[in-house]
Amino acid sequence: MPKKPRNALYAQSGGPTAVINATAAGLILAARRQRGRIGRVFAAHDGIIGALTEDLYDTSRESARTIDRLRYLPGAAFGTCRYKLKGLEESRAHYERLIEVFRAHDIGYFFYNGGNDSQDTSWKVSQLAEKMGYPLICVGVPKTVDNDLPLTDCCPGFGSAAKFIGTSIRECAQDVASMARTSTRVFIMEVMGRNAGWLAAASGLAAEQDDDAPHLILFPEIPFRREEFLARVRKVADERGSCVVVVSEGLRSPEGKIMAESGARDAFGHPQLGGIAPQLASLVQEELKLKVHWAVPDYMQRSARHVASKVDADQAFKLGEAAVKFALAGRNAVMPIIVRKSDAPYRWTIGAAELAEVANQERELPRNYISKDGWHITQAARRYLLPLIQGEDFPPFRGGLPFTQSLKNVRVPKRLTTGFQP
Amino acid sequence: MPKKPRNALYAQSGGPTAVINATAAGLILAARRQRGRIGRVFAAHDGIIGALTEDLYDTSRESARTIDRLRYLPGAAFGTCRYKLKGLEESRAHYERLIEVFRAHDIGYFFYNGGNDSQDTSWKVSQLAEKMGYPLICVGVPKTVDNDLPLTDCCPGFGSAAKFIGTSIRECAQDVASMARTSTRVFIMEVMGRNAGWLAAASGLAAEQDDDAPHLILFPEIPFRREEFLARVRKVADERGSCVVVVSEGLRSPEGKIMAESGARDAFGHPQLGGIAPQLASLVQEELKLKVHWAVPDYMQRSARHVASKVDADQAFKLGEAAVKFALAGRNAVMPIIVRKSDAPYRWTIGAAELAEVANQERELPRNYISKDGWHITQAARRYLLPLIQGEDFPPFRGGLPFTQSLKNVRVPKRLTTGFQP
Repeated sequence: MPKKPRNALYAQSGGPTAVINATAAGLILAARRQRGRIGRVFAAHDGIIGALTEDLYDTSRESARTIDRLRYLPGAAFGTCRYKLKGLEESRAHYERLIEVFRAHDIGYFFYNGGNDSQDTSWKVSQLAEKMGYPLICVGVPKTVDNDLPLTDCCPGFGSAAKFIGTSIRECAQDVASMARTSTRVFIMEVMGRNAGWLAAASGLAAEQDDDAPHLILFPEIPFRREEFLARVRKVADERGSCVVVVSEGLRSPEGKIMAESGARDAFGHPQLGGIAPQLASLVQEELKLKVHWAVPDYMQRSARHVASKVDADQAFKLGEAAVKFALAGRNAVMPIIVRKSDAPYRWTIGAAELAEVANQERELPRNYISKDGWHITQAARRYLLPLIQGEDFPPFRGGLPFTQSLKNVRVPKRLTTGFQP
Repeated sequence: MPKKPRNALYAQSGGPTAVINATAAGLILAARRQRGRIGRVFAAHDGIIGALTEDLYDTSRESARTIDRLRYLPGAAFGTCRYKLKGLEESRAHYERLIEVFRAHDIGYFFYNGGNDSQDTSWKVSQLAEKMGYPLICVGVPKTVDNDLPLTDCCPGFGSAAKFIGTSIRECAQDVASMARTSTRVFIMEVMGRNAGWLAAASGLAAEQDDDAPHLILFPEIPFRREEFLARVRKVADERGSCVVVVSEGLRSPEGKIMAESGARDAFGHPQLGGIAPQLASLVQEELKLKVHWAVPDYMQRSARHVASKVDADQAFKLGEAAVKFALAGRNAVMPIIVRKSDAPYRWTIGAAELAEVANQERELPRNYISKDGWHITQAARRYLLPLIQGEDFPPFRGGLPFTQSLKNVRVPKRLTTGFQP
């Protein structure tokens, strides 16, 4: 009698992206095509917390159509969490508990879909399993809107957020320019990216010619230069009628402090929550006496599945498929990555990175992607970024709004008598 | 010899919408089909200011393809302005100047594409022309994201902004719900609508069932009830994990003051510019100790052509066509409007309203569109709103971003020796 195939556990981690569920779809569908070799795919409810508390969904109870359409769903379909496991010694009880849950459900494959911290966790889980003699294949699957995982050409989620930002900047710029004569002269949009200016840089794609918006980009990598900023806004507004500014939420003061956390107080006397865009807007209005509007899309940018990049959604899906392929090939402690073959036309393939090399490394925005004067992006940045926003992958709409669906999310019966307080 | 056909002047007014250029396209193309009866269509540069200063573009110099594709362009293609003409006596010089410019360019048809103020202007222009014995047909064409023009079923621009807001709320809600366990519990989005909660109400369409987001809607029509707001946010967050709030920029305090103008000061000591969402976010965080995120899409919502409503774009286009038809039928001082025949299926036709009846009337959000408790919309609101966001009319994308185009905008040679300081 052939050995019963072992089950798989899939967990989502960290902030959702527009395409993290495309990865889930690719992975689950690929596993279903290997029924003789992989048993059921369980999904952890709320990421690693679900794994620790033995709170698992049985994805085999969902129809193929439901899984297929996960591709179009923003958010994290099975729930996700921010929950960092520390070192193997420090968080030993957690790691051992994971192995205990895996053993109880005959998990032979663990797929962890997340960013840097998550890949660090996958790597540690694989180390401990080996030490404990528990046979386990750990495969990390990349995801992050921040695009800061090393080794891979890009991270699923980034391209779609970049496309939404580029789209919105282009649209808002046309709006502002067309009524600047009697109304708003300066428009400031704040984008995500606390530590690296990847999304700020992506906004630069909206500008095809020198005069196009955005006219100024404020990166977290370049400390804020107040006087030069004001002078440049004044100059652009004078020469072109209106000025469009993109600012990263992570903009630093010359002293290195994140300016959005500058201790402003609102009308209730409460500390002001985030928002460097309104601060800059007030500065421009007070100092230059120009009418200013500002926008903070916040989660809109990472959940904008309605205008997802086709390249991004495809890569997300294929990385999910590749994770299953790697697992069945017995490749442990690896992460499928995107390998770029050429910029234009963009050609890419799937490669592999060792989790040990991925874990806790951050990929910074290269300095040569920012123009010498620090206010825009370079041609090198364009060559890198442009392929990632190509193609549209519109979701189905129903009744005028993007389709949503609820999963059945049938719970896997618990097998452990002990609980766990994560 | 037949009489030379008289020219037309088209002007855009007030804040742009995602589909105001669709109206321009419908109007210009319809006029081109009537070449023997209408001469050239001129477009005023920056709205009525262009008309006053004799700063006109000759749209006949643009290709049919260019005009056709205006349909997909956000902003106001010929420029627009906020510039209100006062009463006929008070602003007599302005009105007389308009007639002078019209006479110089043999303008027989004046199309003014805007909201309440603009329709008031069109009406006054038609009155003065009559008094002065200048033969002129004035046709107003509706436009406003605020949906506050009377008599018409809806206003072009509103449906597309409503669709963008509903889409974004649905996407953000999925994002927030999926990681609420360890991260953001409350998400607050601020939408436009200073005096009437039309767009706030439209966000309610995202909720198909009782538990769906948005969970609370704060209308300008309902003064802010601080304690009840906090209690409701607490309850929803406790029961459902996360709570999504939509707030109108026009939310009033119990004393009737617009709360966004509450005199907050930022870190530089400058008066804080707008933004009720961050104020509410601070309030929730301080009082309920829940993690909060907030978004202010600002102009993104009125320029989001990439996810325009097909119904809205079609209506905008047809109203432009109808304006020409009315003009050629000699109907002066009227505005084509949308007349609703049925809700589901939505059937509509074009009707006409007298400018005298439109001018300076504001259509309020009916109280029976807001639920009794004041925190959501009713079935009556749904019946009205749902048809307006139906269908997708995606623009062409090029290189990953929505297409843009520059018009040639060839200037009409000036014929007057006198200038005008508007």
